[in-house]
Formats: sequence, C-alpha cells, structure tokens
Amino acid sequence: MDAEHNRQHIVAVARAAFATDGLELPMREIARRAGLGIATVYRHFPSRPDLIGAVLAEQVAVCGAEMQAALDDSDPWRALCGTIHRFSERQIRDRGLNEALLGSHAAGLAFTEQRRAHARALEQLVERARSTGAVRPEVSVEDVRIGLMAIASFRALPPERANTAVRRLANLLLAGLSQRGS
Amino acid sequence: MDAEHNRQHIVAVARAAFATDGLELPMREIARRAGLGIATVYRHFPSRPDLIGAVLAEQVAVCGAEMQAALDDSDPWRALCGTIHRFSERQIRDRGLNEALLGSHAAGLAFTEQRRAHARALEQLVERARSTGAVRPEVSVEDVRIGLMAIASFRALPPERANTAVRRLANLLLAGLSQRGS
Repeated sequence: MDAEHNRQHIVAVARAAFATDGLELPMREIARRAGLGIATVYRHFPSRPDLIGAVLAEQVAVCGAEMQAALDDSDPWRALCGTIHRFSERQIRDRGLNEALLGSHAAGLAFTEQRRAHARALEQLVERARSTGAVRPEVSVEDVRIGLMAIASFRALPPERANTAVRRLANLLLAGLSQRGS
Repeated sequence: MDAEHNRQHIVAVARAAFATDGLELPMREIARRAGLGIATVYRHFPSRPDLIGAVLAEQVAVCGAEMQAALDDSDPWRALCGTIHRFSERQIRDRGLNEALLGSHAAGLAFTEQRRAHARALEQLVERARSTGAVRPEVSVEDVRIGLMAIASFRALPPERANTAVRRLANLLLAGLSQRGS
C-alpha cells in the first residue's frame, strides 16, 4: 500500500507544481517537493509524459467536455465569451494545463490528440461567432491566441492584482473581437 | 579626449543595453559590454540614475514632445491610436525607455517629473477620447496600462513574431476601447 500512497502523493505534488511552474519543471524538483528520492518517482513514472499524463488526464477530459458544451451552445457569442474567460483564468491558475492544451509545447505530447481537438474547437467557436456576425469579420483565431498569450504574462503579478488584470484584459479583448452596434 | 571618448562609448553601450535588458541591468555588466573597468564607468557616472539620465534624457524629451503633439491633435481618437501604437512598439524595442516613463519602476527616478507629466498626458488622452464618444464610457486609463503591460511580454518572442503580435494585439485593444457603431 505504501507504493500506491507514494504514487498518489507524487501525482498530487506534481499537479500543484505543474500548475504554478509549468510542465518543464525537472522531475528531480518534483521528487524534492514530494520529499521522495528521484528513483522512487521514476519507478512510478518512467518518463515525464507518463507523469504528465497521469496528472492532467482528468482535467484535460473536463476541458474537452467544456469545449464540447461551448460548441453545443446555441449562442456562439456567449460560448466564445465563456471560453475566453475560462482560458484566461487558467493561464494564471493552471499553467501546466494550458501548456498541455495550447500551442506547441513539447511537454504536452501526452495529449497530442486532445490538443488538436481543442485547437479545432477554438477555431470553430471563433468561426461560428464570426459567421453569425457576433465577431468582426477581420477577426481570426490568431487574435484570440495572441490575447491569451499576453494574458499569461500576468502570472508574474501578485495574485490579487493578477486576477483583476486578467478579467479586465479578457473583457477588453472580447470588446475588441465583438461586432458591436451593427 | 580619451575621457570624452570613453564617456560617449559608455552612453552608447548603455543605451543599447537598457533598450534590450531594461534599467535594472547591473553597472558592472554595462562596463563589461563596453570593455571598460567598472571604476572608469563610475568615474563618469557616479550612480545609476546619473547614467540613466545621460542615456535617456534626449529620448524622454522626444516622448514628451510626442505626447504634447497628441494632446494638441484635434482628433482625440487618432491621437490615442497613435500613442498606443507608439507605446506598444516601444515595449518591444526600447524596454528601458518605457521603464523610465511608465509605472513605478525605481530605476526611472531620474525622470520623476517627466514620468508624472507622461502619466497625466495619457490620462488626458483617454479622457478626451471618452468625452467625445470615441471611447466606450466604461474605459479608463487603467485598461490602456494593462494592455501595454501585457504587450510587453511579447519581448520574449523572436523579433519577427513579436512585431506582428504587438501590432495585432494593439489593434485588438484599440477595437476594444473604441465606441464603434454609435
């Protein structure tokens, strides 16, 4: 039972560590934070993708379900707003999860397929919002990606300040994407 | 004449160094890049604010003149657009200059007065654009500051990518600030 306890402990420590420091955090630092030897960590998780897979599988599945719900929403603008606010908050409070799901981060290899599905869903959300006239015709998914990338930098702020700045910039981005007054 | 030559060389090296690495760069690193002893640097510039003052005085004066021109512009929206694009590009290509002019960066102490004038001018630009209905009533200068802070993070990108991302996000921010279709 000690082995199972250790395994769960490593996963819990790694979850917190990836959330604050991202998926590139060295395995040896995770072992250190868990108070275990590096050999014990490797016995449970022979490679980093094994560990990342175990830590994030559930959250990645939840994100997939959220994206599906957004795609099923009858109001494309509401769906896009919810998604951008959700992604923005995640940029601050769960760095590892966004690294696994967005961009081309090598450490996200454990979720190649889910990542592709996520990117496709985000494109569809933007496309739908544009085709119904909720979003300006010039807007593309790249604008959303650039905005989210910029928001990620607020991680460096003190938490209270970061939350306010994230919400404010996310609202400003949405105001910039939207086709208002038409 | 050697002394004068050294002084000019230090200023030129420090200008490039501050532009890429910001005003906190250690004096000893500037000496190293200039190929001079730290004692020589201190002989010309006894403290960091002395060096910062010598390096940035001219550029700060130019920025002040640009802000005045923006305030004198009869079209407040055009003035705000020009200012935000100028500030955005500066976030990437002249980190030190923006540190001296924006925020509460300790290293900008050499320009306390100009910095206050700059902040006041930016507030007036936003206020004028709002009062003429060019900008949404909910917008404040804080939105502009948060947007510029986020844009600064694009420094970490490769230059080509950074330029595109800066322009794109600056345009998106402006679209978000503006009161369109009213």
